[in-house]
Formats: sequence, structure tokens, C-alpha cells
Amino acid sequence: MILVDNIRNGRFKTGMTDEAAEYTSSLEADKEIFEADIKTNFAHTSMLKHTGIIDADIADNILSALDELKDEGYGALVFDPSVEDVHMAIENYVTSKIGPQAGYMHTAKSRNDQVATDIRLVLRERIIGIQIGILEFIEGIVEMAGEHLEDVFIGFTHLQHAQPITIAHHLMAHAQALKRDYERLEDTYKRVNLNPLGCAAMATTSFPIDRELTTKLLGFDAYLENSMDGVSARDFIAETVFDLTSLCTTLSKICEELILWSTYEFGVIEMADEYSSTSSIMPQKKNPDVAELARGKSTIVNGELVTILTILKAIPYTYNRDLQEITPHLWNALKVSEDTLSIVTRMLLSVEFNTERCAELAGRNFATATDLADIMVRERNIPFRTAHKIVGRIVNEATASDMAEEDITSQFIDDIAVELGFDKLELDDELIQNALNPRENVKIRRVLGGPAPEMVELARDNIKIFLNEEFEKKGI
Amino acid sequence: MILVDNIRNGRFKTGMTDEAAEYTSSLEADKEIFEADIKTNFAHTSMLKHTGIIDADIADNILSALDELKDEGYGALVFDPSVEDVHMAIENYVTSKIGPQAGYMHTAKSRNDQVATDIRLVLRERIIGIQIGILEFIEGIVEMAGEHLEDVFIGFTHLQHAQPITIAHHLMAHAQALKRDYERLEDTYKRVNLNPLGCAAMATTSFPIDRELTTKLLGFDAYLENSMDGVSARDFIAETVFDLTSLCTTLSKICEELILWSTYEFGVIEMADEYSSTSSIMPQKKNPDVAELARGKSTIVNGELVTILTILKAIPYTYNRDLQEITPHLWNALKVSEDTLSIVTRMLLSVEFNTERCAELAGRNFATATDLADIMVRERNIPFRTAHKIVGRIVNEATASDMAEEDITSQFIDDIAVELGFDKLELDDELIQNALNPRENVKIRRVLGGPAPEMVELARDNIKIFLNEEFEKKGI
Amino acid sequence: MILVDNIRNGRFKTGMTDEAAEYTSSLEADKEIFEADIKTNFAHTSMLKHTGIIDADIADNILSALDELKDEGYGALVFDPSVEDVHMAIENYVTSKIGPQAGYMHTAKSRNDQVATDIRLVLRERIIGIQIGILEFIEGIVEMAGEHLEDVFIGFTHLQHAQPITIAHHLMAHAQALKRDYERLEDTYKRVNLNPLGCAAMATTSFPIDRELTTKLLGFDAYLENSMDGVSARDFIAETVFDLTSLCTTLSKICEELILWSTYEFGVIEMADEYSSTSSIMPQKKNPDVAELARGKSTIVNGELVTILTILKAIPYTYNRDLQEITPHLWNALKVSEDTLSIVTRMLLSVEFNTERCAELAGRNFATATDLADIMVRERNIPFRTAHKIVGRIVNEATASDMAEEDITSQFIDDIAVELGFDKLELDDELIQNALNPRENVKIRRVLGGPAPEMVELARDNIKIFLNEEFEKKGI
Amino acid sequence: MILVDNIRNGRFKTGMTDEAAEYTSSLEADKEIFEADIKTNFAHTSMLKHTGIIDADIADNILSALDELKDEGYGALVFDPSVEDVHMAIENYVTSKIGPQAGYMHTAKSRNDQVATDIRLVLRERIIGIQIGILEFIEGIVEMAGEHLEDVFIGFTHLQHAQPITIAHHLMAHAQALKRDYERLEDTYKRVNLNPLGCAAMATTSFPIDRELTTKLLGFDAYLENSMDGVSARDFIAETVFDLTSLCTTLSKICEELILWSTYEFGVIEMADEYSSTSSIMPQKKNPDVAELARGKSTIVNGELVTILTILKAIPYTYNRDLQEITPHLWNALKVSEDTLSIVTRMLLSVEFNTERCAELAGRNFATATDLADIMVRERNIPFRTAHKIVGRIVNEATASDMAEEDITSQFIDDIAVELGFDKLELDDELIQNALNPRENVKIRRVLGGPAPEMVELARDNIKIFLNEEFEKKGI
Repeated sequence: MILVDNIRNGRFKTGMTDEAAEYTSSLEADKEIFEADIKTNFAHTSMLKHTGIIDADIADNILSALDELKDEGYGALVFDPSVEDVHMAIENYVTSKIGPQAGYMHTAKSRNDQVATDIRLVLRERIIGIQIGILEFIEGIVEMAGEHLEDVFIGFTHLQHAQPITIAHHLMAHAQALKRDYERLEDTYKRVNLNPLGCAAMATTSFPIDRELTTKLLGFDAYLENSMDGVSARDFIAETVFDLTSLCTTLSKICEELILWSTYEFGVIEMADEYSSTSSIMPQKKNPDVAELARGKSTIVNGELVTILTILKAIPYTYNRDLQEITPHLWNALKVSEDTLSIVTRMLLSVEFNTERCAELAGRNFATATDLADIMVRERNIPFRTAHKIVGRIVNEATASDMAEEDITSQFIDDIAVELGFDKLELDDELIQNALNPRENVKIRRVLGGPAPEMVELARDNIKIFLNEEFEKKGI
Repeated sequence: MILVDNIRNGRFKTGMTDEAAEYTSSLEADKEIFEADIKTNFAHTSMLKHTGIIDADIADNILSALDELKDEGYGALVFDPSVEDVHMAIENYVTSKIGPQAGYMHTAKSRNDQVATDIRLVLRERIIGIQIGILEFIEGIVEMAGEHLEDVFIGFTHLQHAQPITIAHHLMAHAQALKRDYERLEDTYKRVNLNPLGCAAMATTSFPIDRELTTKLLGFDAYLENSMDGVSARDFIAETVFDLTSLCTTLSKICEELILWSTYEFGVIEMADEYSSTSSIMPQKKNPDVAELARGKSTIVNGELVTILTILKAIPYTYNRDLQEITPHLWNALKVSEDTLSIVTRMLLSVEFNTERCAELAGRNFATATDLADIMVRERNIPFRTAHKIVGRIVNEATASDMAEEDITSQFIDDIAVELGFDKLELDDELIQNALNPRENVKIRRVLGGPAPEMVELARDNIKIFLNEEFEKKGI
Repeated sequence: MILVDNIRNGRFKTGMTDEAAEYTSSLEADKEIFEADIKTNFAHTSMLKHTGIIDADIADNILSALDELKDEGYGALVFDPSVEDVHMAIENYVTSKIGPQAGYMHTAKSRNDQVATDIRLVLRERIIGIQIGILEFIEGIVEMAGEHLEDVFIGFTHLQHAQPITIAHHLMAHAQALKRDYERLEDTYKRVNLNPLGCAAMATTSFPIDRELTTKLLGFDAYLENSMDGVSARDFIAETVFDLTSLCTTLSKICEELILWSTYEFGVIEMADEYSSTSSIMPQKKNPDVAELARGKSTIVNGELVTILTILKAIPYTYNRDLQEITPHLWNALKVSEDTLSIVTRMLLSVEFNTERCAELAGRNFATATDLADIMVRERNIPFRTAHKIVGRIVNEATASDMAEEDITSQFIDDIAVELGFDKLELDDELIQNALNPRENVKIRRVLGGPAPEMVELARDNIKIFLNEEFEKKGI
Repeated sequence: MILVDNIRNGRFKTGMTDEAAEYTSSLEADKEIFEADIKTNFAHTSMLKHTGIIDADIADNILSALDELKDEGYGALVFDPSVEDVHMAIENYVTSKIGPQAGYMHTAKSRNDQVATDIRLVLRERIIGIQIGILEFIEGIVEMAGEHLEDVFIGFTHLQHAQPITIAHHLMAHAQALKRDYERLEDTYKRVNLNPLGCAAMATTSFPIDRELTTKLLGFDAYLENSMDGVSARDFIAETVFDLTSLCTTLSKICEELILWSTYEFGVIEMADEYSSTSSIMPQKKNPDVAELARGKSTIVNGELVTILTILKAIPYTYNRDLQEITPHLWNALKVSEDTLSIVTRMLLSVEFNTERCAELAGRNFATATDLADIMVRERNIPFRTAHKIVGRIVNEATASDMAEEDITSQFIDDIAVELGFDKLELDDELIQNALNPRENVKIRRVLGGPAPEMVELARDNIKIFLNEEFEKKGI
């Protein structure tokens, strides 16, 4: 068996202290790249064989050992504190199988280019996984929206009643945000799927390696064109983690609304029992714990982004050991995002809307007042600002004297108009009531991007086309 | 003159306190969107005219007044604390020119969709400006690299001498990083250049507006497909600011190196006097102040990103006033990035390399030891690990006995090989010296992405093609 | 008139470019330290005179000129781009008054120790100002709480009804949080109020200066004991800004609640018109804009903290120009905090509680269920877990069959107990109703820190003692 | 055996999905509070017994079971996914020992106050542990400084040679920074060591509990005076984590310098082999990996702080499940800080200074020029600015013509003075050489806080007094 601290032997007289070995160890995070590291070694060794840099026999022995390790899995590796990382552990495994010939695998390669390659191989799979999760979430939302096309609900600005919308329209807003979260990852993928292998420690190698071949074998889109950049660039990690903060912000916004909507006061939804918990002391409670935790956990990605950006601040070329500390934060950000995406998907899609309460809220609080102003503009051709002023006063007085929408008559309106120094408007009472009725109100907002059922249907159709195309791209 | 608190009159009995008016005012940041706001009003009014929603005569009067304002500029607006923002100030201006007819401009539009439109119009220009700045910086770097293709320098890992490279190769690493910073902005642009106009307050409008027309008039790629999303989405801002943190990280890395390299100890460069300063008490100092400040200012964008992401955390749909606070941080992040990009460009391109010192460092410290190991592998077909171990011991003993690279002989190597239990290697002394000479060493790294002059020349050619294409896209 | 680029003359042949001069200029932020800089110069010159390092006559001339400048104010300084900062501008002013003798002011002093001294002088005043603002806010809250000692309200956990409290008890929770925000600043003050003057550039001076004298003259608690630390320590800034994030988090929590409570759904408070605004398109709106903006602006301090911590990351001793960039972020964090504290104080204290709605919510939703469980434990001596289980089922069934609190009878309870396999409890019906009545429920929580009126009164008394002591310390 | 999902039984018909149970589980982080939770239960049960709220026999049984659990340790707990947290697991353990009587433990207590109590109990121990670590580090530094009181070194500003100092003086700067890091934790401790127990879910309890007794039993300084604040306040966590960012910033600054100083170019120190590593491809490397990783890991605390502050942003009273997510970030920040403090302590204290190289650098580059200016002021009574100008030109010309410090004569100085239009100075040549000699130069900086050996000795004495006092306070 080869001594694990092999590579230190020549240079140093003493090993690291145990504390230092543990402090600098990347082993925990390395588990994530175990399979990728085999893949990288496989491609590299194949290339060394193909270019004749190492003997075909030796190469084949190495490849067989790697195949065996792939089958046996991570558990087959032997670690002790002095094995610095998974790369050394794999090389040790191969050595244990084929003897000193294993030493040829490291020809024209360094841990610097290897780890960068491994991270990119894993990351691209994780990105695709999250993308598929987003597509599935959008698909669920589009379906759910289909069930609520005509269910009116109140739209909020400043958390105050603004204008009537439908539940479907609200849900589809999330779909649009998620679509952009998907697209951002798609763009980032282009900068992830690039090949650093062959950059070696930082200056490539004097062996005549074939980087185009490893690029092809590993399924990368291209190789990185500068070896110093190749081993030290980590902007693809920061960018991915930013994309995840963006996704998590979307998810946390959904959670915030579910928490609000499931309060006694809003009473707009019923959360599934599966995503609620109770209290150890207050047995009546039904708490939206999953939504709260998802809101809380979403912020972890923000913190990880700050850690990564701060590590990257002002470190000179090329590889510095600080870079090792970036990777665990990537894995953690991915895990948090994957878990949160998955659970928020299920939680939102299992929500029951209280459509009566939604309709009730839509009809309160003069949320349709804007349309009363619009009618004045259309019917009487007065400037919008004048109409705005009259309606403002109407709402003010109606609220003060506890009038409901149905109490607003043409006469009442004209009294106010005159009081403010304008002409009477003499609007038709039915027209007034139609404008003030939330269901009618929503129907006439037949503008692209608007809440009218046919407009939301159009938006759903467009998203379905997008979903089909993207699912196909991802081979689903 | 129209009363400024017009829109509050109907609803409230008292105005805001002066303190509250000032606290909530967006006027300072609004200066940035003044021209865009005229443009938006122009497109919206044109659409209202074209669709017949308002009379052509009235529309023309409004358009003329807007034209006048455009000529007169920001100074023509009248503000007092009760004018909440630039939108009201512009409407007041139009009113002062054409009277109450101005009230028609606001038909089927809200400040919510308007401000979102304005921000996007300004931002897309600023993005293009920064992109051009990046292209010009890359262009300068490529030229500078052309002058140093054969000038060897030492490459660092862990800030320790690693392997010889050339100054050109090092410079081209920055070019690659900047290219990705450019591409990120290109991708973000797609999500910026979308039209929220017509979303109105959050639920569109019952007027039959034509959003495709305003999309075309304003040069947007498409309209936003959900009105609730349209008024409240700010992910395009967070994404842009992230892109800027990435750019600033690249710039701050350059600064870090310039600061290091201009120390007495490294002595690798001479900074231009224009970018240095002296001390009020220590007259001998030549301080790299610009580089230090650029390193410091780069972090501002990180802070702005945190502010923006924290504002966005868990706020429900749709528009909430918190969103107003996001925009100033966008403008600040853009300004810091523009300024820093500009000055770092000039500063780096005015640096003088001390090529003798670079060469001297490249020849020290056994930076070519890897190649000695490579030669053993190639010439004697021993495993790389064995070679690595022998060379490690060579360096160790040579360092301990103050030997220089030129003192390493075949004999010395073989003594060590035998001592470690391996066979003699009997390498040719000239071969050994060639491997250890940094100039020769660089030349044989003739791998894609490597430091050999012809490889760097290839990388330069590829970047030049990229530059030409992109300059053309940007119309330069 | 002295040439402004005086200090560069000896060392450099060319000045900075205009762009570089502007980029490196600290002039805008320097306005904040103008008065402090005069104070520092005054103390330093007095000390130079007292120790005989410079002639008394010259010193007196300098002191007179500084006095004049103090009277004339910032406007009396002459700046052009080549004047790097306020220190040079003040020296130039003195020179313009008394000629080359002004050159003696800078004896045994550097801009490095001077700027550190100036910042500390200003900061300590700003800290005290914010502390007084906090005390006044607490005072207002304590008074407001006094008016609502008996007004029951519902307490939330997970934004779900938990247990009845009083409005007073809720308000006093904010007072406790603010008290800690105050105390943190008090602790930080100790690390701010230390004297760096005399550290000079970083290694003190060979002049026999008297640092104890300047410490006394400037009102510092002590001098900094290591000159390298003295000029480069900025942890006191990071610490202050952290304290401000903590304060702003308290303020933003208050805003979040005000936003929630002023919704139609909660309907718990009415915000004063002075802190609300309306919509340009929806005249019925009354939006809590000030609270929303305060919630948004609070996050700025988080961003500034990140900027400052990132600048401080891994910069070696001693002064580096990056440090200049820290100060504007301190001033901004202070300004945002001061403004937000002031407006949130006024806003909260002008809120009207809808006490009927508060009482109504307190009586809904079985918020008193815990006490029903407690009674079972007390009266029948069963384990709390058993009682918890029975009450859980009671609430479940009561909710399912739309029963109200007043419908819960001894009989109903016993049916459920038996159904769950426990013995009958045979509780007194009046006891049950008392436990379920929120007013009675609050009164019996007569525990230290509890919501019973006399306990809140005790907490108010304790805080009043604290307020008196602290107001006195601050000389108010 | 009691059913683990006991507390859900009454209220819900279905349990959480496995995914939701895992997502919301705090079990991993709960390991940290296991012992504290026993302690809290012990104190609470003792109080219940003492006040007669529960029978003495039952109480004694519970206390015995808790004692047993304490001996058996964490492994004795039984978990399955439906056991939400450690509190339930402990209650289950007690139930398994003494049956349903265990149900009395939870009388007048909730998980909300319990977890807050547990966290504070653990945290105060960890704070003290870190404080002791800081004291030991300072002690080591003070000792190391004692060995280098006379060893001159160059002090840097802007990473350029500024003025001569000693190695001891430089080391003592770190001691001052660490002292403040210690004091900050001392201040924070006051806000950590407060008792939330008895706040129950958020409104205390109707049982006549004795909070002063539990405060005493648990060694808290006082109880929290408002129950709503008591269960939801987490500012003590944010504050602790800020203190740790401050400590880690100090540590990362040390690492940055060690990395710089161990470069070939600076060559100022030799790192111990124990804290270095080599390269897999470049055998000659001796990389400062531990210092690099410590620099990288230090930023983790920044990220954790951002996560915590972002979670705390704008969440209403009282307990929200988001708060659960704060605690793991506290534990992680503590762990990273503890590990980094420990290893940086050992690493710095094992560094070997190359005192010859230090002295050599101190004598280069006219670092003593300031003192030449000072001498002109003292001997010839000219304004400092005039002296500054003359010395600036001297350095400029000397550098241009490759003169060393020893070539500066009185004649050379006077030629320059006259050339600049000033009078001859006619300084004594020996005086000039003394001023320019770094060893002499340091000795005459005999100012409080200065680098002269006796001043550093004074600073060491002061710190030793501080160390003695603080070690004593901590019982060491």
C-alpha cells in the first residue's frame, strides 16, 4: 500500500498536526464530487492513452480500476487524516489495485484543474435537476390556475386592497417569476459547462495533451482558453448561487403570502395538514411551519452568496487555498434550494382556496373605484385627474358614512362632483353598479397581461408551449 | 398652477408632515429617470391617440408639451416637498403648458407600471455602456499582451512561485474573466428589455390599450405577460447588480495584483504617477491609492446587492413601497462600477512591467521543477508519482544547501534517486538545464490554453474575433 | 496662496488625472468631519505649544486662524480637484491667513491619525444623538402602553392566534428590544471614544508629544496604545454599524406589524394620515407608505455593514487607502438610522388602536385553550400532556362544528375525555367560562414578565427608572 | 411507550409527510442543546416542586429520570422522524422511565421559552471558551513580542515601506485588536445571560411560577421582563455572530500578512511545516494553506451574519418558525471561529521571523525620511511643510540616481534646499545618519503607543495586567 502522505514526503520533514489536517481537509465536501472525479480521471486517462502519452496497457489497467471503484462506490475509499482529499484517496485506491503504475494517472494533470473539472461536472447536473423542478412547479401552477380562472380575488398593493383580480391571475404571476428563474440557470449553464482539464496546476503541461478530446469525452461545450483563468475562475459558482437566491426569493414570496393568507384574519386559504404543525402548549394552533421555515431557509442562500463573494474579494491569481472553502457553500446552497423548491411546490399545490372569502374581499373596500373613474373618463370625456379627484371624495364620504358599493348612485356621485366645483356627470346607475361589481370588473380587463379569464388562458397557453419546449430539451 | 397634492385631496384631510414627505420622496433618485419618463409618457400618449382612447388634439398637445420639456431639461420642473415624485412633476409641467387636458395623460396608466418602465429604459442603456467599457478594456489588454508575448514571468499559486508563464499569458487571464462579465450582462439584458407598461396599478385597465404598440415604440423585445408580475418584479435589478459584483470582483483582483506587484519586495511593475499619491508625512512614498480605492469601492456593489436582496425578501404581491428603495441602490451600483471600470482600465494599461525582474523571479525557486519530473516520466517512463517524489527531494536538498537551478546535474539527481530506493535515471545534462530554464520551459507548454507564445497568440486572435463581433452588435 | 498639490511636488512629476483625483477624493464625506478636524487641529496645536515643540507665538496664530475658520464655517474653504481632502483644505486656509507658519500645524501629526481622530469625534456625538432618540421613543411607548393596560388583544405565534395579551404588553415588548439597542450603543461608545492622535502615520513621532494632554483636551477616555493599531483600526465603525442594523431590525419589525395591522383584514389600527399616502389611480387607497419605506430603508444598514466588513477583509497593516471608503458608509448608515428612528417614533405614537377589534380577535379562535388545559391540571391533577391532548380534541371538534368559546360546557369536555380513554373531569362550568374569557385570562397571568395589568405596570416602572437614569447621564 | 406525535394527535388527522418532517426537523442542531435542555428541565421541575405547582414525589421522579439521562447521554434518546425535536425526545425518555407522570414536566412551560433558554445556556459557555482562547492568544503574542523588542522591521502603509518599527510593535498591534474582540464578547455576554424561562409560549402562564428562582438556579443575571420579547428576541445571537465576524476579521488580517510575508519576495518569515502543504505537481512548493483556508473560512461568519439578519428582517411578534433556522448558523459561526482562533494561534506563534531580512527592509527605501524632515524642523525651526518638500525632493533625486541612505550628506541636502528656493540648513552629518538609521530611528520614537522598546515594554505590561485580571474572572 502506498503511503498516503506520499506527496509531502519529499519536501517536508514533519506532517501537519492533526488539527491542521482536519482544518484543511475537504473530505466532507469531496463526497459530492466522488463520481465526477472518477469520470474526470477516466476521460483524462483515455486521452493520455489515445495521444500515446502513456502506454495503452497501463492506461487500460487504470481504467479498469476506476471502473471497479465506480461500482464499489465511495465506501471503497480508505481515508485517514493525512489523505488530504478525494483525489489522493482515488489514486490510492487505484494503486492498491494495480500498484505503482497508478502513478501514471496523474501525468499532465494537477488537483487544481481536476477539482475545477469535477465541480463543473456535478454542478451542471444539479442545475438541470433544479431546472426540471422549476418546470414541474410551473406546470402545477398552470394547472391549478386553470381551476380558478373565474374565481375573483382581491389584488393588493401596499398590502391594501387595490383592484379585483382572479386567483388564477395571481398564481400565474408566480409562474412568470419562476420562468425567469429557470432562464437564468439556463444562461449560467453555458458558463458552467466549460472544460478546465488540461490547465494542470496553472500553466498547462509540456506533454502533448489533447484538450479537445477531453472536452468531448466529458460532454463540455468548450475548453477554457487560459490555463491561469481555468484553475482559478469561480465566478460560475457565484453566478449559480445568485440564481438560487433569485429562485429562493420567489419561493419565499410565495411562503409569505401563504402565511398571510392562512391567518384567521385573511382566511383565504386552508393549508394541508401535512405542511402544518401545532403547539406543545396551545392545542388549538394550526401553524404554517413549513412555509415559515422555507421563508427562513431561503435566506441561507443569501448568506452563502455573501460568503462566496467575500472569499473571492481581492485574491490574486491563480489557485489559492481559499477557493477550496467556496465549494461547500455551493453544495449547501444547492441543497437548500432543491429542498425548498420541492417542498414549496407540494405545499402550494395542496393549498385549498376559500373562494367565497376571496370573492367577499374582492367586493369590499371600493377596490373597483378606479373603474368608476375610468367610466367617467370614457362616458363624459373628462380628464382622468378630475375623475380621480371625484372618486377619491366618493370613497372618503362613503367610508365615513358606512356606505357599501351598492349604495353608490348617480345622484350621490353628482352631489359630490358639484360640491367639488365640477359639472354633474349623470351616469347610468346600471353602468355604475357594473363597474363596481368585481366579477364584471375583472372581465373587462381584457388587455394583454390582464386578469380577464381569456387573457389568463392565453398566458397559460404561452407557458405551456414554453414548458413543452423546455421539457423536451431536458429529455423529459 | 395645479395644486401639487392634488391626488391626496380627495382621500385625506391632512398632508404628510414635512419629515414624512422628505423621507418618502424619491426625487433624488428620480433625476436618473427623468428622460425615460418623458419617453414613456410619449409612447403611452401616442398609443392612447392611435387607439382612439383620447382625442388626437389633446394627445398632440400633450406630446408637444413633453417635447418642450425634453428640450428644457430637468431644470424646468418645479418641485416642492409635497410633489411626491418626478411623475407628478412632469404631469404638473404639462398642466402648466396646456391646462387640465394634461389630466388625460394618466389615462390607463399608473405610477406603478410607469416607474418600472422608466427604470428598464435607463438600465438597458447603462448596461450597454458598461459592456462597451468592458470590450474596450479587453481590447487594451489584448494589445498590451501583444507586447509581452515572450516576456517570462513567474506564475503564482498560493502566492508562492509555481511555474513560469509570460506576462502576456497572465494579462490574457483577465481578458477571459472580463469576457464572461460581458456575457453575463448580455444575458441579463434579455430580462431587462421587457415592457411593463400597460400593467397599470397591477391589474391592467378596462381601456382597450395596445401593449404591443408601446412595446414597439419603446424598443422593448416583448411585453411582460402578467400585470401583477409586471409592476412588482425587480429580479432584473438584483441580477444586474450581481453581474456588477462579478465585474467588480474581476477589477478588484486586478487591483490586488497591482498593489502587490508595485511593492518594493515584488518590484514587478511601476505604476503611472497619475494613479499614485504620496504621503503628507512620508515624502518618499509612492502609494497605489487608486488601486486601493478601487479594491475598496468594489465591495460597495456587494453591499448594494445585499440591500436589494434583503428588501426583496418575503414581500407579498404586488407593488409595495419598499420597492422604491431598491432603485437608488441600482443607480449607485452602476455608478461605482462604471467609474471603477473606467479607472482600472486606464490604470492597468498605463502600468510599466519591469521585465527583467519578471524574468529573474521566473528563474528562481525551482519553479520549473514540475518539468524536471515530466522529463523523467517521458525519458525514463517512470510513474509520475515516483518522479514527483524524486524532484521533491531534489528541491529540498538544493534549497537546504543553497544550490541554484544551474547546479542541478544528472549526477546529483541520480544520487537522490538511489537514496530514495529507485534506479538511476542517467538524464542528459543539457536536457535538464533546458527543462529548468524558464524561457524554454514556457515555450514547450504548447497546449491549448497554455503560455507558449503561439498559444497566447491564438487566444488573442480568438478574443479579437469576439471583440469585432460584439463591437459591431453595439454599433461601434 | 499655497499651491494645493504641495505635498506631491517633491515626489512626482505629474499630477493625478482629473478622473483619478475625483475617484480618490473624499471631499463629499469630509464635510461630515469639518468641525471635528478643526477641533483636532486645535487640540494638537495647543499640545505642541504646551510641550514647547513649536513656538507659542506661532501656535497662537494657528489657533486664531482655526477659530476664525470655525466661525466662518465650511463655506470658507477653497477646494479644487487637486486638494485631496478637508485636511489639506484647512491647512491651506490657515496658510492663507498666517502664511508659511501654518506649516507648523502638521508637525508630529499625519492625516492617518488625524482622520481617525476626526471620525471618532463625530461618531461619538452621533451615537449619543441616536441614544437620546431611542430613549424618547421608549418614553413614548411607555406612555402609550399606560393607556392600554386593560385593552386585551390577541398575541400571535406563527402569525396565528396564540393567547390573549394586552395592547400594553405588546407595546412594552418593543420597549425591551429598544432598551437593548440603546445598551449596545452604550457599550460600543467605550470603544469609539479612544484617542488615535499622536500615532502619526503609523509609528508615532520623534517629537516629545503629550498624548495624555490631547486625550484630555478632546474628551477621550484614553489613548490607543499601539500606533499601528491606532491608525488602521476600524472595528469601532463596523461595531457601530452592526448596532444600527440591530436598531433598524427592531424598527422594521414595528413597521411590519403596522403594515399588517392596518390591512382591511386585520383592521386593528388606523394609521395617521400624515404617515399614509394614496394611489394615483386608485383613489380609495390608504397606503402605509412610510412604514413600508422604513421597512425597506432598514435593510440599507445591512448592506452598509456588508460593504464595511468586506473592505476590512484581509487587508494587512497599517493604513491602506481602502479604509477611506469605509467612512461614507458609516455616515450613510447613521443618517438612515437617525431618520428611520425619528419617523417610526412619530408614526407608532400616532397610531390609533381599534380596541374593539382587538378584543374581538382576542376572543376568537380558542386562544385561551391553554388555560383550559392548565385548569384541568390544577383542578384534577392530571399530567399536562393529557390535558393538552383533551383540549386539542375539544378545539378540533368545536371548530369542525362551528361552536364558539361560550358553547364549551363541562359535559362537552367530559364526552371528549371519555372518548380519548380518560376519566371524566367534571369541571365547574363557570370556571370553564372564566378560563375561556380573554379579559379574565390575561388578568390571571400575574407572573413576572406577564401580561396581567399589574405586571405590565411593574415593567413600565422599571423602564421609567432606566429612562431617568439614562436621560440624566446624557444631560437631559 | 408514548406515541411520539402525541401533540399533533388532538388537532390533526394526518401527520407531516416524511419530506416535511425532515425539512422542519431541528434535530441536527438540537444535539448542541441536549445538555442545556436537561438543565432547563431540571431547574423548571425543581421550581414547580418548590412552588408546590406539582407534587414533590412526581417532581422527584422526573428529576431522577433527568439525572439518569444526563449520565447516559445523547445516545439514550430515541428519535424517529415524527419526533419533532430534542425537547419531545427528552420528554419521551422521561415517560419511558416514569410513565405518564412525565407529562407534568411541561406544566407552565413551552418549547418557545425552553429553546430560548437552552440556546442562551450553551452560548454563554461557548462565549467564555472563545474569550479564554483570545486571552491565550494574546498571552502568546505578548511573549513572542518580548523576544523581538529590538528587532527592527519595516512598517507598511499602502503596502509600501513607511517607517521603521520593530517586530514586537507589529505583534502588539494584533494584541490590541484581539483585546477589543474580547471586550465585545464580554459586553454581549450581559445580553446573553438573561432568563426567558417562564415566558411559556409567549404570554407566561396562569400557574404561580417563580421566575426569580429559575433565574438563580440556572445562573442567569436576570429574567427577561416581557414574555413576548422573551420568546422571540434573537438579537443576542446576531450580536454574538457580529462579534465573531470582528474576531475573524482580526484573524484573517493576521493570515493575510503571514501569506504575504512567507512569499519568496518578502521572505520575512518561515512558516512551520505543520501549517504548510505542498503541491501534487510542483514538488518545490511550500504553501501557506492553513493561513489561506483561515482567511477563506473567516468569511463564513460574515455570511452567517447576513443569513441571521435577513431572517430577522421584518418578522412580526412573537415566535415564528423562521427563528429555528437562526440557531444552526449560530453554532456554525461559533465552530468556525473556535477552530480558526485555535489554529491561527498555533500558526502565528510557531512562525520564525527572519530578523536579518526584517532589518534589511527597514533600512531600504528611505523609510526614515520623515525623521530627516523632523530634524530640520527641530534643528532649524522651519515649518514642517517646508521640510517635507525638501525631503521629498531628496528622496526623488536619490532614488533616480540610485543613492543609498548612507550617501545623503549635509551638502547634498543644502544643494536641494537652495534649488527649491530655501536657505541652507547646514545640518550635522552624524545627526543625518542617525536619523536615517532604522535602529536609532525606532529608539527615539519614545511616545506613548510608539515603537521604541521601552514603550512596547510598557504596552506589554499593561496587557499583562489585563490578562491577569481577565483570566482570574474566568477562573483560570
